[in-house]
Amino acid sequence: MAAVGVLMVPRLAAASALAPLSGRLRLLGGRAPTPRAALHGTAPRPGARVALVLSGCGVYDGTEIHEASAILVHLSRGGAEVQIFAPDVPQMHVIDHTKGQPSEGESRNVLTESARIARGKISSLAQLSAANHDAAIFPGGFGAAKNLSTFAVDGKDCRVNEDVARVLREFHAAGKPIGLCCIAPVLAAKVLRGVEVTVGHEQEEGGKWPYAGTAEAIKALGATHCVKGVTEAHVDRKNKVVTTPAFMCEAALHHIHDGIGAMVKSVLELLGK
Amino acid sequence: MAAVGVLMVPRLAAASALAPLSGRLRLLGGRAPTPRAALHGTAPRPGARVALVLSGCGVYDGTEIHEASAILVHLSRGGAEVQIFAPDVPQMHVIDHTKGQPSEGESRNVLTESARIARGKISSLAQLSAANHDAAIFPGGFGAAKNLSTFAVDGKDCRVNEDVARVLREFHAAGKPIGLCCIAPVLAAKVLRGVEVTVGHEQEEGGKWPYAGTAEAIKALGATHCVKGVTEAHVDRKNKVVTTPAFMCEAALHHIHDGIGAMVKSVLELLGK
Repeated sequence: MAAVGVLMVPRLAAASALAPLSGRLRLLGGRAPTPRAALHGTAPRPGARVALVLSGCGVYDGTEIHEASAILVHLSRGGAEVQIFAPDVPQMHVIDHTKGQPSEGESRNVLTESARIARGKISSLAQLSAANHDAAIFPGGFGAAKNLSTFAVDGKDCRVNEDVARVLREFHAAGKPIGLCCIAPVLAAKVLRGVEVTVGHEQEEGGKWPYAGTAEAIKALGATHCVKGVTEAHVDRKNKVVTTPAFMCEAALHHIHDGIGAMVKSVLELLGK
Repeated sequence: MAAVGVLMVPRLAAASALAPLSGRLRLLGGRAPTPRAALHGTAPRPGARVALVLSGCGVYDGTEIHEASAILVHLSRGGAEVQIFAPDVPQMHVIDHTKGQPSEGESRNVLTESARIARGKISSLAQLSAANHDAAIFPGGFGAAKNLSTFAVDGKDCRVNEDVARVLREFHAAGKPIGLCCIAPVLAAKVLRGVEVTVGHEQEEGGKWPYAGTAEAIKALGATHCVKGVTEAHVDRKNKVVTTPAFMCEAALHHIHDGIGAMVKSVLELLGK
């Protein structure tokens, strides 16, 4: 079974390795696609070069999957060329998403799990340099607060992963836009002093904004919090930081998708592309 | 750290359990959201009741993440009420998506991993009955060919998971629409004799359709293959089966997203909702 497993991953299947199962593989094509097999690199013309920074795969211990996917759909529609990165570090823990509880004794790597969203085309965050990209975008999910920083545990006293902090400072210093959504704006609030961000509304409003208290943490970090709805993005033009609430709001998924679209559009507009 | 992990999953955080870390939790809201915290159930009015059947989380050993997310976005926009299911069985194997190779010695459960896409709100496929839903949709990814069936190994001689076969037969017998994309149409081709489906084009066309050979397997299964582009869906009106190529095509992500939109729209149209 293991051998079949290798062969069934077409982008890595060397032609020579296919021979033993060529009949079966032909059923699924049998030819190794080009590196363009993943979901990026098919922009109609050279567009913005955008780095996407992931933190795992799954809302409770990694990147919020639907936020990452929405960002990629909107970047694709905007003609951007995307490269995906994640830190090559262990996850804080693994959450069994059916139970909402840690899987004791299990450990996973942030880069390896993020590769599920990236369809295998991913690099270590250590390799991300602002020199090679026009913009950087950070989706949310608890991974941003657990693996990219210690915000989930330490709140305003959190530490931010060294490469994440370096990347944020590099893009900011180069005047290149940074997009963030959901809980990820705390990263910018911590690293870029005095930045303006949104994490949505500042009151829970009967459960519509269950994480509304995050706005207070944003202020405690020395940043300015700007109230926005789920379909809106806030643009800090001075710092070129664009944020949208996403899953900070209890909303229908298409509203979250559209809010992320507004964020991506503003990031690309700041580039003039 | 483990205790924090439990507490940081708000939908499962009982108020009594929050006390020890209430200060920190307040930073992220500190209140347990209602069951509507997940991504469904927020339809503006009662709409179609659609069952989504997943097969894991990640293209090479489970559900293709972006296909599942696109289906959910389009169902949300169409006002549907979604329930998510997956079989409670071990995955065929775990693929390290950075290497495209099996992680030896690691095992994961299809339901548990699918819960990452479902944000925890998921049920065992054994509980899915056509009596409670208006339509069923199956995204692709190798999970459909490895965990929902043995197609990746056995091709046209594949076996289909018993609950998957039962569900397909139940919806079909009840005249309720079934949507499938990417490689998942092989499930309908195997279980519903004489059905019409598309998996895209029938020639590789220089790598644009790397799995084009699948069309031959569809025919060998006794089904009719209908050639379609990545932004189109094929509707078999007699059998109420709707299919779209999705990641069978090397295309920009937004074209795949739009093709899935066409599939979802046709499924909802067949319901007259």
